[in-house]
Amino acid sequence: MLPTTSSLQIGELAAGQALTLPIYHFKPSGKHSGPKVYIQANVHGAEVQGNAVIYQLMKQLERCDILGEITLVPLANPLGINQKSGEFTLGRFDPITGVNWNREYLNHAIDLPTWYKEHAELSDSELIQAYRSTLVEACQRRLRNDWGVTTGHRLAVNLQAMAHEADIVLDLHTGPKSCKHLYCPEYDIASAQFFAIPYTLVIPNSFGGAMDEAAFCPWWQLSEVAKVMGRDLEIAVSAFTLELASQERICLEDALVDAKGILAYLSHRGVIAEQVEPAKMRRFGCYLKDYKKYHAPMAGLVEYVAPVGEPLAAGETLVNLLRLDLYGSEQELTALSLPQDCVPILHFASASVHQGTELYKVMTNLFELPH
Amino acid sequence: MLPTTSSLQIGELAAGQALTLPIYHFKPSGKHSGPKVYIQANVHGAEVQGNAVIYQLMKQLERCDILGEITLVPLANPLGINQKSGEFTLGRFDPITGVNWNREYLNHAIDLPTWYKEHAELSDSELIQAYRSTLVEACQRRLRNDWGVTTGHRLAVNLQAMAHEADIVLDLHTGPKSCKHLYCPEYDIASAQFFAIPYTLVIPNSFGGAMDEAAFCPWWQLSEVAKVMGRDLEIAVSAFTLELASQERICLEDALVDAKGILAYLSHRGVIAEQVEPAKMRRFGCYLKDYKKYHAPMAGLVEYVAPVGEPLAAGETLVNLLRLDLYGSEQELTALSLPQDCVPILHFASASVHQGTELYKVMTNLFELPH
Amino acid sequence: MLPTTSSLQIGELAAGQALTLPIYHFKPSGKHSGPKVYIQANVHGAEVQGNAVIYQLMKQLERCDILGEITLVPLANPLGINQKSGEFTLGRFDPITGVNWNREYLNHAIDLPTWYKEHAELSDSELIQAYRSTLVEACQRRLRNDWGVTTGHRLAVNLQAMAHEADIVLDLHTGPKSCKHLYCPEYDIASAQFFAIPYTLVIPNSFGGAMDEAAFCPWWQLSEVAKVMGRDLEIAVSAFTLELASQERICLEDALVDAKGILAYLSHRGVIAEQVEPAKMRRFGCYLKDYKKYHAPMAGLVEYVAPVGEPLAAGETLVNLLRLDLYGSEQELTALSLPQDCVPILHFASASVHQGTELYKVMTNLFELPH
Amino acid sequence: MLPTTSSLQIGELAAGQALTLPIYHFKPSGKHSGPKVYIQANVHGAEVQGNAVIYQLMKQLERCDILGEITLVPLANPLGINQKSGEFTLGRFDPITGVNWNREYLNHAIDLPTWYKEHAELSDSELIQAYRSTLVEACQRRLRNDWGVTTGHRLAVNLQAMAHEADIVLDLHTGPKSCKHLYCPEYDIASAQFFAIPYTLVIPNSFGGAMDEAAFCPWWQLSEVAKVMGRDLEIAVSAFTLELASQERICLEDALVDAKGILAYLSHRGVIAEQVEPAKMRRFGCYLKDYKKYHAPMAGLVEYVAPVGEPLAAGETLVNLLRLDLYGSEQELTALSLPQDCVPILHFASASVHQGTELYKVMTNLFELPH
Repeated sequence: MLPTTSSLQIGELAAGQALTLPIYHFKPSGKHSGPKVYIQANVHGAEVQGNAVIYQLMKQLERCDILGEITLVPLANPLGINQKSGEFTLGRFDPITGVNWNREYLNHAIDLPTWYKEHAELSDSELIQAYRSTLVEACQRRLRNDWGVTTGHRLAVNLQAMAHEADIVLDLHTGPKSCKHLYCPEYDIASAQFFAIPYTLVIPNSFGGAMDEAAFCPWWQLSEVAKVMGRDLEIAVSAFTLELASQERICLEDALVDAKGILAYLSHRGVIAEQVEPAKMRRFGCYLKDYKKYHAPMAGLVEYVAPVGEPLAAGETLVNLLRLDLYGSEQELTALSLPQDCVPILHFASASVHQGTELYKVMTNLFELPH
Repeated sequence: MLPTTSSLQIGELAAGQALTLPIYHFKPSGKHSGPKVYIQANVHGAEVQGNAVIYQLMKQLERCDILGEITLVPLANPLGINQKSGEFTLGRFDPITGVNWNREYLNHAIDLPTWYKEHAELSDSELIQAYRSTLVEACQRRLRNDWGVTTGHRLAVNLQAMAHEADIVLDLHTGPKSCKHLYCPEYDIASAQFFAIPYTLVIPNSFGGAMDEAAFCPWWQLSEVAKVMGRDLEIAVSAFTLELASQERICLEDALVDAKGILAYLSHRGVIAEQVEPAKMRRFGCYLKDYKKYHAPMAGLVEYVAPVGEPLAAGETLVNLLRLDLYGSEQELTALSLPQDCVPILHFASASVHQGTELYKVMTNLFELPH
Repeated sequence: MLPTTSSLQIGELAAGQALTLPIYHFKPSGKHSGPKVYIQANVHGAEVQGNAVIYQLMKQLERCDILGEITLVPLANPLGINQKSGEFTLGRFDPITGVNWNREYLNHAIDLPTWYKEHAELSDSELIQAYRSTLVEACQRRLRNDWGVTTGHRLAVNLQAMAHEADIVLDLHTGPKSCKHLYCPEYDIASAQFFAIPYTLVIPNSFGGAMDEAAFCPWWQLSEVAKVMGRDLEIAVSAFTLELASQERICLEDALVDAKGILAYLSHRGVIAEQVEPAKMRRFGCYLKDYKKYHAPMAGLVEYVAPVGEPLAAGETLVNLLRLDLYGSEQELTALSLPQDCVPILHFASASVHQGTELYKVMTNLFELPH
Repeated sequence: MLPTTSSLQIGELAAGQALTLPIYHFKPSGKHSGPKVYIQANVHGAEVQGNAVIYQLMKQLERCDILGEITLVPLANPLGINQKSGEFTLGRFDPITGVNWNREYLNHAIDLPTWYKEHAELSDSELIQAYRSTLVEACQRRLRNDWGVTTGHRLAVNLQAMAHEADIVLDLHTGPKSCKHLYCPEYDIASAQFFAIPYTLVIPNSFGGAMDEAAFCPWWQLSEVAKVMGRDLEIAVSAFTLELASQERICLEDALVDAKGILAYLSHRGVIAEQVEPAKMRRFGCYLKDYKKYHAPMAGLVEYVAPVGEPLAAGETLVNLLRLDLYGSEQELTALSLPQDCVPILHFASASVHQGTELYKVMTNLFELPH
C-alpha cells in the first residue's frame, strides 16, 4: 500500500520561497502496535544516496504487512541540497555561518532527577510516554523562542521533534569517499548484525550533537537516573547513523541492498510481520577512541592508494603525495603510511590538499562482531 | 626605532606555496623589564582594520621609549584573507570544514592540582615562568602530533604559542557591520577604561574557544587552584578582543584613534615610558548573558534602520522587512522591533536574509563603567 | 488601484522546489493605449535596491491614472538572491558555471534583410507587431530546445520574452560600492534627463549580452535594415539599465527618489496621465570607450579614498594600498592615483585585493547632458 | 638528465604571498634543433592529473636523447588549485568574477595584411621568427597596460607568452567525470593518432578563448594571409588540448600511459631521438558541431547510468532522475535517453541537479580516424 504524503515547512529563502520537507507515513494495517520508526536522509546536502535507499525501502514496504508506524523524511535539508559551488553540493555546513547541519540538534537541559521524582509513580509505559511528551514539547518551545532561532536550528529541531515520537531512529548519511559503516551506541551493539554494513563504530552514550545522539541520549540518561533510583528501565529508543558509501552518488541497485538491511532490522524489531534475514557477512567493530583521523603532513597532490573498506598493514602505502614544484628533490613523491594496522574507512574527496587537510579516517584495533 | 622583522611558516597551500606570517618585534631600549605584549590582527579574513591599527601603532611605537617587549602579528590568517567568494572575503571559517578560525585554539588539559603541587615551592615569578613554559610546550607538543593536526589548528596553536609568551594579549577583530566593542574578562574590567571603545562585553572566565580566552583562562584557573591551596596569586595574563568597527573596511584615520587607545593601555601597564591619557568618553558595559542575538522571524529584504552604537527604545523599529513577493498583502512591509531597550552593536552584512539569519546583536541591561 | 498579481515558474531546484517569479501588472484604466512598460529588478542577487524602487513605484502607480500597461518583475533571479556565501549574496554569476546572470539573454539570429522583405508591405505599426511576435516566438522556441537549456538561459530568456512585449524596458541594477548611473543607448540620450541619476554611460547600439541590449538591439537593427531599404522606421523600443547605488543595501527613502525619476520618464512617455517633472540636477555623460577599469597593480589592503560620484583630479589619491608584510620598506603604504581627471563611479566591495582585482571604474572625458 | 628549474611570478595574493609557477626545461644535448615544445597542466584548479602526466613524462625524458627544447609548466594556476569550497577545488573560474580561467588568453588584434606586407621579403624561417616575436611582444605589452590587467588575464598572458615561443603546445586538462578526449584543430587531424586517447574533437581554426586556440590561431591566420598573397606557408605551430579523464583524481599508472602517448607524438615530431610507437587502439573523431550538451529537463537526483567512453544507442537510458518529493506519482523515477546514437564523453560531477544543469556531453556522428 502506498504511504500517505504530507509536508512540513522548515524555513523560507531570502527571495520568499518556502522550504518544505516531503514526509511519507506507513500506518499499521490492523490494530497492531509495533515500534514507531523515523528515518531521514540527506541532512548533509551532498549525501544523497540515503534518498535512494528510502525509495527502495518504500517500494518494499508497500508490499509488507506493517505492524508499527513508519515515518520517512528524504531530502531532509533542502537548503543544503540546493547549495551548489562549482560542480559540487556545498552541503555539509550552513554557507553563511559554517555550522555543520548535523550539529544543530537540541541538547535537552532537563533536570532529570527532579523530573523523575515527579513521575516516579507512573508505570514504565506511562513514564516513557510522559518523557516523550516532555522532549517533544521542549523542541516546540525552542522553536517559539522570542528572539528567533537560527536557520539550521529551526531545521534540526523540527526534525528532532518528529524523531522523538519514534522508538527507532535511522539517520542516513554517507562519507566523502567512503565504505559503508554504522554509528552504533555501545548499549545497542547487538543491533549491528542486521544492517548490510561491514564496519561499525561503537560510540559512547553521550551527546555529541548528531541526530542519533539527540535521539537516544535523553533515554539513556533517563535509564541511568532510574537505575540510581532503583528501577530497571529499558532504554526505550534505538538510534543509528548509517553511512552508506560515498557522497554525490546515486546507485539504485546498491540502495536496494541497504533497504533490505534496514528491513532485516525492522523485521527483527517487529515493525513488519515478514521475516527478513540479515545479509550473511562478517562485521567488524571499532571503538570511537580508535577511529583516527590522518591529516596531510605537507601540502600536495594526492593519489589515494589504499582502498576504503580493506585492511591495510602498518607501513603499507596509504597515499602518494606528489609535489610538482619540488621535482628533482627528495620530496617530489612521498609515499605516506601509518604506524599501525588499520582499515581505511573514508578519504577526502579532492586530489589536492593543503597541509593539515584530513586525508583519511581509519579504524584501528578492530574486533569481529558476533552474528 | 624600527621593529625587527621575522616570519613564521604556519601552513602550506595545495599548489605548494608556504603560508608565512610577518612578525614585528619591538625590544626594550635599555635593561627595562616591563610586561611582554602580543598583538595579532585579521584572524578572520574579512576583518582587516586591525592591520591598519597595528600599522598606526607601530608608527607610534617607533617614537616611544619601549620598556617591555612587544610582538605584533598582522595578517595572522593568510588563508582566510586570501579566500575570496565573489566580491567578499570568505574569511570567517575554513572553507573546507566550516570551522570558525577563531575556535581552533588549544584547550589545555593540564591536571592543575597535581601540577600546582609539583611546583608549589616556587616563588610567584618562578611559578609563573614554569607555568608559561608548560603552556608553550603543550602547544608545541600538539603541533608534533603523529596523526597531524588540521589546517586551522596548526595556525591557531602556532599563534597561541607566541601569545603564551606574553603578559598582555590583544586580538584585533571587527564585526560585520558594527560599532566598536571590547570583549573583557570580568576580573579585568578596570582595564576597559583605557581603550577608545564605548561598549564592553563582560565575559566569564571560561574557555569558549577564542584567543583571548585561550590566553587568560589557564592563568585564571591557576589562580583559582592556588587560592584553594591558600595562596593569593595574581592572574598573570591580561587578554582582550577588540572589535574595531566593520569588516571589509580600512580607515587609517580611525586606526590612529584605536592605536592611541591601545597606547594608553600600554602606557598604564608600563610597556612604554610615555604617559598616554585615554580618550575621554563614556563607556558602557553589558554581561555576556545580556548580549542577545535577534534572528529573522521570516525571510525577506532588510532595511537596517537602527544605527549601531546608539540606544534603541523597546518598540522602536530595528529593521524594515520587505517582501516583494507579497505586495498587496499585510506582509509586504513589516517593521520589526524588540521588546526591551537595547544598544544595537552589530548587524548582518547582507540586505536579503533567509528565515533564521542573525539580523542584529544587541546589548541589554547596560551599565556605565567607571572612569 | 492595486496591480494584479501572477507568477511564472522559471526553474526548479535540486531538492524539487519550484522557482517562481512574482509578476505585477497595472492595466490602463480606460481605453487608453500608451506604451507598454516592462521593469525588472535583482537579476544580480546582491543588487536588491531595485526591489525597493519597484515597491515605491507601485505605491505611486496605485494613485496614478494609468494609460499604458505596466509589468513589474521584482526578485527576478531567485537562485541568485538565495545563494549565500558567508555574509554575502553570491549573486553575480551562476555558482556552478561562473556565467554572469546578466549575459544569458538570447542574441537573436534573425536574417533581417530576408525578414524585412517578407514583411515590407506592412504598415509601421503592423511591422512592429509582426517583429515583436517574431522575437517572442524565437524566445519560446529557444526554451523548447530538445537538448534543454542552461539554468541561466532559461531564466534570462523567460524574462526576455516578457520584455519583448514592451515598448519601454527598465532593468534595475546596482554597482558594488557605487553612485547612481544609467546605461543609455546613444540614440536615446535625450531620455537621460528624466531619471534622478547624475551620470550616464552612453553605450553603442550593439549586443553585449545584457537585458537592455537584448531589448533594443533587435529594434535598432530593424531600423537600420529599413533605412537601407529606404524606409524611415523609428526604433520602437527604449531600454535602459539603471544602476541605483550600492549592492546589499535597502533604503526606502532613496528608493522613492528613484521611483519618482522613473515616474518622470513614464510621464514624459505618456504611460501615466499625471505630469511628473524630473528632478532638477546636473547630469553628465561619458562614452563607453572612456569608461575605464583600474586594476590593482599589486596586492594588499585597500583604503578607498576617492568617494564615488565626485570629480577626482589627475594625480589625486584614489586608494591607499597598505602592505603590512612590507612594513619598514617603501611599499608599506602606497598612494595610487590616475594620470587623468575622472569621476570614480564604483569601487570593489572588499578591502583586501589580489593583484589584478578591479579596484575602480571611472568615467573620463565627461560632458554635461542638456536638460 | 634532470631538467633545469626556474620559476615565474604571475600574481600576488591579498595577504602578500607571491604566486609563482615552477618551470622545467629540457635542453637539447647537442647542437640539435628539433621543434620547441611547451606543455602546461592544471589551468583549471581541480584538473590535477596533467601534473602526474608531466611527472611521468619528465621521468621518461630524463632518459631520452633530447633534440628540441622542452618547457613544462605543471600547477599552472596556483590560485585555482588553492581555492577550496567544501571538499572540492573551485578551480574552473575566478571566484571573484566568475570568468573561466581558460578564457583569459589574449586574442591578438594584429592587422595581418599590413604586417605581412612589411615582412613579405623574409624567408619562411625568418618570417616565422619575426611573427613569433610580434606575438610575444604583444603579450608583454598587454601585461604593461597602464590601467592594469585582471588577475586571470595576467596569468593567462604570461602562460601565452611562454607558449608562443614553442612550435608544439600541449595544454593538459580533464573533464568533470570524463573519458579521455583530445581537442584537435581540423588542419592537424593526422596528429591525433599518436596520443593514447580514443576520442578526438575536431575543432575549427578560430579563436574561442582557450590556450590551444590562442597558440595556433595566429599561425593559421598568417598562413591564410600568405596564401592570399600567393605564398604557401605551413602552419608553424601545433597545439592541442588533452582531456585526461576526470578531475580530482591522481593516478600515476594511468599518467604513464598518457606520458607515453605524448612521447610518441614528440618522437614523431623529432623532439626526441628515440623511436616511440603510439599505442595501438581505435580512435574516433567528432566535429565540434556534433558535440552536444544535454541539460536536465527537470531537477532531481541523478543516477548516471551511461558509462563515459562507451557507445550508447538512441533510446537507451542515459540517466535515471529520482524525485523523492514526488514519490507515488509518475515522476518519482524517470529514465532519460537521447534521440540519437552517441558516445557519452563526460558527465556532471554532482548527483543532484537543478533544472538546466548540463548532465552530459556526448559525441554524435562519430567517424573512425585513420591510423
